[in-house]
Amino acid sequence: MVRNSFDKQLEHLQDLMINMSGLVEESIENSIIALKNQDLELAKQVFENDNVIDDLENRIEKICLNLIARQQPLAKDLRTISTSLKIITDLERIADQAADISEITIRMAGMKYFSELIDIPVMADLAKNMVKRAIECYIKQDINLAKTVCDSDDEVDDMFSKIVMELINVIKNSPETTEQATDFMFVVKYLERIGDHATNIAEWVVYNVTGSHEHLARTNEHNPFEFGGQNV
Amino acid sequence: MVRNSFDKQLEHLQDLMINMSGLVEESIENSIIALKNQDLELAKQVFENDNVIDDLENRIEKICLNLIARQQPLAKDLRTISTSLKIITDLERIADQAADISEITIRMAGMKYFSELIDIPVMADLAKNMVKRAIECYIKQDINLAKTVCDSDDEVDDMFSKIVMELINVIKNSPETTEQATDFMFVVKYLERIGDHATNIAEWVVYNVTGSHEHLARTNEHNPFEFGGQNV
Repeated sequence: MVRNSFDKQLEHLQDLMINMSGLVEESIENSIIALKNQDLELAKQVFENDNVIDDLENRIEKICLNLIARQQPLAKDLRTISTSLKIITDLERIADQAADISEITIRMAGMKYFSELIDIPVMADLAKNMVKRAIECYIKQDINLAKTVCDSDDEVDDMFSKIVMELINVIKNSPETTEQATDFMFVVKYLERIGDHATNIAEWVVYNVTGSHEHLARTNEHNPFEFGGQNV
Repeated sequence: MVRNSFDKQLEHLQDLMINMSGLVEESIENSIIALKNQDLELAKQVFENDNVIDDLENRIEKICLNLIARQQPLAKDLRTISTSLKIITDLERIADQAADISEITIRMAGMKYFSELIDIPVMADLAKNMVKRAIECYIKQDINLAKTVCDSDDEVDDMFSKIVMELINVIKNSPETTEQATDFMFVVKYLERIGDHATNIAEWVVYNVTGSHEHLARTNEHNPFEFGGQNV
């Protein structure tokens, strides 16, 4: 294995992953702007972007597998490449969630929202920032930054519970809002998933640095006993 | 590359994947039985099973990457192994959905259901059967069977829309059911996701056989224009 050439290829891999994560962050942002403004054109752009992101994932995956097949990397390098494979899967899923949010925007076309969206864009910003930090900690191999991503997941989960409960109250007070309110519940579910996927990415970074794969965030361990403040 | 030895390893890989898919189908089944009967013990078992499934996924992944690194497979064999990597990711996500359903069962502990669950178990059976057929078409390399999985995804999606709309009506008529009804909406969203993942598996089988990766089911293309019978 020629180290220089291998390092160059790892660098190229990293560039493509930064490229992919930029597109994914843009998708999250656009999906929420489209939702807020009921912008159907922007929502459709998010779908088209999803195909671009899928293609990039396939391309990066091929590079990873070829690297493994041709360079037969050992230990740390194999771990780096297999981590990249995991991370691009999570990035692709995040893009899918953004496309799902856009699907809801299109479905709600023509409906007048029962109120202005305030909490949902805040939650979306949190989730988008988690994705940004997750990729940053991958580039810098920074496990302290990885842990902040997992702390943020708790915050995103709390917002999910809070918004769902508010929507439940809205429905109870005004049953005619039920369709909209349930659509918004799915939106916050998708945002909560984005947080989970960003946390997965951070966990893979920790794995890559330490060799140990731990679940760092509450919900990734499927611990239901603290959901929404209700102790069971 | 010694063909006999390589074929034996591919066979071993296949056995592990059949094992993993069996555990995943069991998780789907148990999560719905637990939901139906409000069986907390069974719900907790589904969580524990999720960890077993995650470990199996990691084990299979290592085998795949080692096969690529040590045997440097070309063309068809590399495609088979990379397909296996994709499929186990989808299987692991399906198990996560089952664990999420169990999380809801635990959250609803002590609540009396506003009605007996009928449509949800039917939808769950459809989804579980899709997973079963998806793995079968992988083992048999059967693209016709793969296409039936994708047809079933349309059926599962239609049930999702139908059940969500019924739950919306329940809420409107009896706002005191809102919490339960929204919990059940999340359950059917998880079942719909299981259908999507089973369809992904079938698409990867077609890719493995033909070399071409196409989206075979409606929702995997994010085509929102036919959601729930509402044309936009």
